[in-house]
Amino acid sequence: MLAEAKRTVRVPLGDRSYDILIGPGLIASAGREISARLKGRKLAIITDENVGALYLPAFMESLGQSGLTATSLTLPAGEKTKSFEHLISVVDHVLEARIERGDAVIALGGGVIGDLTGFAAGIVRRGSRFIQVPTSLLSQVDSSVGGKTGINTRHGKNLVGVFHQPDLVLADTDVLDTLTPREFRAGYAEVAKYGLIDKPDFFAWLEKSWRDVFAGGEARIEAVAASCQAKADVVAADERENGARALLNLGHTFGHALEAYTQYDSARLVHGEGVSIGMVLAHQFSARMNLASPDAAARVIRHLKEVGLPTTLQDIPGEMPTVDRLMDAIAQDKKVKGGKLTFILTRGIGESFIADDVPASEVVRFLEEKLGQ
Amino acid sequence: MLAEAKRTVRVPLGDRSYDILIGPGLIASAGREISARLKGRKLAIITDENVGALYLPAFMESLGQSGLTATSLTLPAGEKTKSFEHLISVVDHVLEARIERGDAVIALGGGVIGDLTGFAAGIVRRGSRFIQVPTSLLSQVDSSVGGKTGINTRHGKNLVGVFHQPDLVLADTDVLDTLTPREFRAGYAEVAKYGLIDKPDFFAWLEKSWRDVFAGGEARIEAVAASCQAKADVVAADERENGARALLNLGHTFGHALEAYTQYDSARLVHGEGVSIGMVLAHQFSARMNLASPDAAARVIRHLKEVGLPTTLQDIPGEMPTVDRLMDAIAQDKKVKGGKLTFILTRGIGESFIADDVPASEVVRFLEEKLGQ
Repeated sequence: MLAEAKRTVRVPLGDRSYDILIGPGLIASAGREISARLKGRKLAIITDENVGALYLPAFMESLGQSGLTATSLTLPAGEKTKSFEHLISVVDHVLEARIERGDAVIALGGGVIGDLTGFAAGIVRRGSRFIQVPTSLLSQVDSSVGGKTGINTRHGKNLVGVFHQPDLVLADTDVLDTLTPREFRAGYAEVAKYGLIDKPDFFAWLEKSWRDVFAGGEARIEAVAASCQAKADVVAADERENGARALLNLGHTFGHALEAYTQYDSARLVHGEGVSIGMVLAHQFSARMNLASPDAAARVIRHLKEVGLPTTLQDIPGEMPTVDRLMDAIAQDKKVKGGKLTFILTRGIGESFIADDVPASEVVRFLEEKLGQ
Repeated sequence: MLAEAKRTVRVPLGDRSYDILIGPGLIASAGREISARLKGRKLAIITDENVGALYLPAFMESLGQSGLTATSLTLPAGEKTKSFEHLISVVDHVLEARIERGDAVIALGGGVIGDLTGFAAGIVRRGSRFIQVPTSLLSQVDSSVGGKTGINTRHGKNLVGVFHQPDLVLADTDVLDTLTPREFRAGYAEVAKYGLIDKPDFFAWLEKSWRDVFAGGEARIEAVAASCQAKADVVAADERENGARALLNLGHTFGHALEAYTQYDSARLVHGEGVSIGMVLAHQFSARMNLASPDAAARVIRHLKEVGLPTTLQDIPGEMPTVDRLMDAIAQDKKVKGGKLTFILTRGIGESFIADDVPASEVVRFLEEKLGQ
């Protein structure tokens, strides 16, 4: 039963190709999966306080049963951990553990732990082996796949980092049971995104089956696997984001601006919620520019609302942003060239494209309408 | 005259290919060379107190004349600057200067500044454009070519870094006039190394022409260009040191052990001097293993002695190391597998090869003889 449910998605990147295993019970069988693929025997695990309390003992036990030795470092949970200070702690821990060629560094946690640990693995000995064990829906379907790593500085998020592909990703779908409904929904926004980018059938399936995905079991595994496959396809085609990889930013230009405006206060807005509102805005703006029928935007709103995600600027608790504040945040995120912006727009459900000549003035007018200013 | 003397060595690495320009007056003409190759107009220069005092004003002026704008950060000189602390300063300076795609980060200095700045450029926005302006012989012929960057930690030298190729290298041979004789000689050890790896004709030419190389002018430019070409060939064949690039470590296993033993005290030993003694030991050890005629070692000693480089362990001022201390340092630098070590050995002048099965016991006996212990 367990073996049947497991899916494998291959990310084809030449001699840096790797597998993403998706299914239940992968933390318990981690030792077996890792020892079958790794030459070395030594591992350094980086986790955070929340995830570590729940899964570190079982994970360590599984490694030990397969004859692997592991050290662990537990960091504070939260976005603030993506800092130079904690990067130095992780690097020091990995060097202290004498992780060498053939051994590996493991990220056990969500996006914060994955991004930080991947960065550390990317710079120790100019690149060490790296295994992702993502424990949030968001990290399972997005950040653990594709090799983007990094930390934040006072100048902005993810401005410092490297591309460093993992050697293996273990996405244990059982751990998603411990997420709060809000965390699960936020991750789900990225799942829906893959349908909206270029998989209309997947989006239609989600509209029909989302309750099963939220409930767990086969549908959830299927949704995670389809998302990883979609991301793997994009990354394989454009590893370093010189072109098509930018499609993954659907909903993210508006989303990032909203996150920046709310100062990354998770009480008001988390990343996936910003992406949810951002995807709605991208579809509405596309309709306003006569690129897509308003029906597409209506369908997006209906589905995201149904699962419980925010879909309008007014859904964000607290004071509303001004148009100027949002445009400032958009300009910081994107390069404005001669008054033109790059956005991911759409011609309909699953028909997104990169538009690199969006007039800033049109975005301003659109936001004025949305905010009633 | 100036244009005639200039050489260009191309490092062929696909879409990361770049030119090394070698010749006199390149600091004065840097603005022209850079603006001809760069889309952006903004530069962030990192230098150290010694080099900055000598060359920063002229360099900035040259950039300004070509319509480029530059900010600069001047760091303390010396190996201690290759630290996380200074890495953070450089990253902060580059982000503060709003260096974006098309703009570039510039290292103006020797190996320390080049390694540190290259690392920072490699992680800002997951890889920013990077220009090397090496000002020591060692950095012109070795560290500025090939993309290895990094810093030191308490666990060892260069254990943290990335591979990040520069977009351009400007090796102004005029600046070598301000080096002390000892600094020049130390860099020359790496020049001689290229002959000993696989260019017997180049080594023979150096034996004949080394006085001209030390004096400056055409012979010096020729020696720098030939060295860069030799390194470019190796790097193009094996960018990430999975195989043949290890040949560049000729003399370095013994050399690094001596540097570690003397605790990187430059009053006793600098890197090139360690490499000089190390190359002699590698040739002597090869003769002892009946791989090469003792004549090759004798020729290496004769030449290195003639230029004024140390060639024996006894040439290092201060207390002699014990065999145990040296073997410890070698074991830390290299992986010992079942009592076997990897060394670069030789079958004669310009006939080096990678030996991955050198018995540690033979090295111990060899060092016992050399140290009379």
